[in-house]
Amino acid sequence: MLKSRVKKIFENLESKPDLIIIKNSGESFIDDNFFYVTGLEQGLFEGCTAVFFPDGKTDLIVSELESELAYNSSADVSIYKSTADYQNILKNLVGSLNKIGVNFNSITYKDLQKLKSIFSNPDFLDVSQALSKSRAVKEEDEINKIKKAVKIADSVVKKIPDIVHDGMKEFELAAEIEYLMMKNGADKPAFDTISSFGRNSSQPHYTHGDTVLNSGDFVLCDFGACFKKYNSDITRTFVFGRPSEKQEKMHMVVKSAQEKAFEKIRPGVKGKEIHNVVESFINTSDFTGRFIHSTGHSLGLAVHDGGVGFGPESDIELLENMVLTVEPGIYIPGFGGVRIEDDILVTKNGLEILTKSNRDLIGIS
Amino acid sequence: MLKSRVKKIFENLESKPDLIIIKNSGESFIDDNFFYVTGLEQGLFEGCTAVFFPDGKTDLIVSELESELAYNSSADVSIYKSTADYQNILKNLVGSLNKIGVNFNSITYKDLQKLKSIFSNPDFLDVSQALSKSRAVKEEDEINKIKKAVKIADSVVKKIPDIVHDGMKEFELAAEIEYLMMKNGADKPAFDTISSFGRNSSQPHYTHGDTVLNSGDFVLCDFGACFKKYNSDITRTFVFGRPSEKQEKMHMVVKSAQEKAFEKIRPGVKGKEIHNVVESFINTSDFTGRFIHSTGHSLGLAVHDGGVGFGPESDIELLENMVLTVEPGIYIPGFGGVRIEDDILVTKNGLEILTKSNRDLIGIS
Repeated sequence: MLKSRVKKIFENLESKPDLIIIKNSGESFIDDNFFYVTGLEQGLFEGCTAVFFPDGKTDLIVSELESELAYNSSADVSIYKSTADYQNILKNLVGSLNKIGVNFNSITYKDLQKLKSIFSNPDFLDVSQALSKSRAVKEEDEINKIKKAVKIADSVVKKIPDIVHDGMKEFELAAEIEYLMMKNGADKPAFDTISSFGRNSSQPHYTHGDTVLNSGDFVLCDFGACFKKYNSDITRTFVFGRPSEKQEKMHMVVKSAQEKAFEKIRPGVKGKEIHNVVESFINTSDFTGRFIHSTGHSLGLAVHDGGVGFGPESDIELLENMVLTVEPGIYIPGFGGVRIEDDILVTKNGLEILTKSNRDLIGIS
Repeated sequence: MLKSRVKKIFENLESKPDLIIIKNSGESFIDDNFFYVTGLEQGLFEGCTAVFFPDGKTDLIVSELESELAYNSSADVSIYKSTADYQNILKNLVGSLNKIGVNFNSITYKDLQKLKSIFSNPDFLDVSQALSKSRAVKEEDEINKIKKAVKIADSVVKKIPDIVHDGMKEFELAAEIEYLMMKNGADKPAFDTISSFGRNSSQPHYTHGDTVLNSGDFVLCDFGACFKKYNSDITRTFVFGRPSEKQEKMHMVVKSAQEKAFEKIRPGVKGKEIHNVVESFINTSDFTGRFIHSTGHSLGLAVHDGGVGFGPESDIELLENMVLTVEPGIYIPGFGGVRIEDDILVTKNGLEILTKSNRDLIGIS
């Protein structure tokens, strides 16, 4: 499996390097392509490196902290104990080769400088596009993991109407959502859970605070599960109690916009065509100009899996077995926002909607 | 407050740039210095940029998604709607200045290339060390936030003995820990909670799986709370049931090693001196060579806050109001591991141990 992934990456390269180096930095500066090429399902791998060659051979250079986990991969594992150690192992692996592929999108400038200093005459090529392209179309194993991540989030979406109660605080709902995902098998939340009440829902990247739920408030929940490194991403917007006419209209327009997208999604269509349909639809409603982000993004090892998407500049054509989210929204500062987000799999003739729960529900109490 | 932080950063620079640009990339490639200079306590700020000048003036360039949140900062806010927009705003801010400070540790190579293409004749200087140095000594407001994050984690540590039960799975304990932290006011877990049972505890970066708890197993929990962007980080290792002689000895050696560190921590001591004391102590016990990581790290906006630490190469002297963790450990593959981690504040004459709960407990049931 992993050999074929590595080969696929090299096939997707226009200008071929002799080898590719994926270098993780510290803490959150981890390149998820490390997990793509190794197939590792657990571990952080700070400061670790994967080196892979056109024939599919892959080597890992890892610290002692990660050594036991690293052996779960079929790659060859070397363990370093110091910076000098690390550099020697890497030098030996690279030998006299000098056309080195690097992911310019996910390596820090400092780390690239360090690589430069290790080799005598390196010629670095950016392989970020080939990585994105390879990852855009999912393999069966990847789809199964995403479906499991979707199932976990979907089961939680189902329970939200029962959990929500008068006087609840935003962070309490976020706590319940994440707890249920973990209990249902998520390794962790895919990202910081958004649980925004009332007018806070007009801020797409608001997470949660201690705002108290009152009757008539929007309840916007945007969350996902991470399962063996693969993610889901779902959003539902309800109204606690009886929705006002305006709230109902916002919900209806967003819902219809999403339906327009669903009707159009199939292999061969460009991402921006989907976005344009959604944006035009919202802009001909009462809510012109209130849709302020892309219509969706690829989903996989990253929540925003890169490359493919439904943005205004997404020129890439959809292909079978791509997995994306479709998330139109309407945001009115001071009033509130509605976003509905579902995860879809592009099929031979159209799409499969993976997220199923509470897709039409608006009023909860 | 923020003006003084910006000024402090410039004071800590040996070679002074005309201005500093902090540029966030996507998803997890976010530079936490963005939050240091803006004081923002919420939001993701993907693709956003902070520009600041020697006189303390700070500008933010943010996408529409983050605009409402950005206004919580005292910085000037510009909103961009397209790449061209973004570039124009940045160009105008920078004007004819060309000595541009950048954090080489946290900017991607691609983003630095993009910056290069925007300006006519830029001269980029690395400001990573000045940022680390500025952040190493905490201000009162930062210490208060860390103390709150510590208090949340500490209150959860207290409850672990009551939560743990026969037949429990690792991920269930992780779910309970994170749930309690969120309910107690954490914005999110500081990092992926480690909850490892039995022999799994010998892998320092194992997170959790579905291993079932049995009598006599180690229960190693390493977790922390994130509160308004500031983190805590605590580890306790218990034995479920009656500890064996070997388990007790491991625990005792780790505990004593930590005490040795505590005795030596005070302003003026170098980080590596602390590490050497701990390592030597463990290496003269029955567990020679079983301590395989640094003794601790700085704590703040990042869990590994950079710069200061208790590693074998930590040459930086401790100063009053630094906050660090002290986390010796012993790891025996196939048997298990013990790690004890507490968060400390360096005081005028020594230290204050911030984490207080269950510091001596070993057997739980």
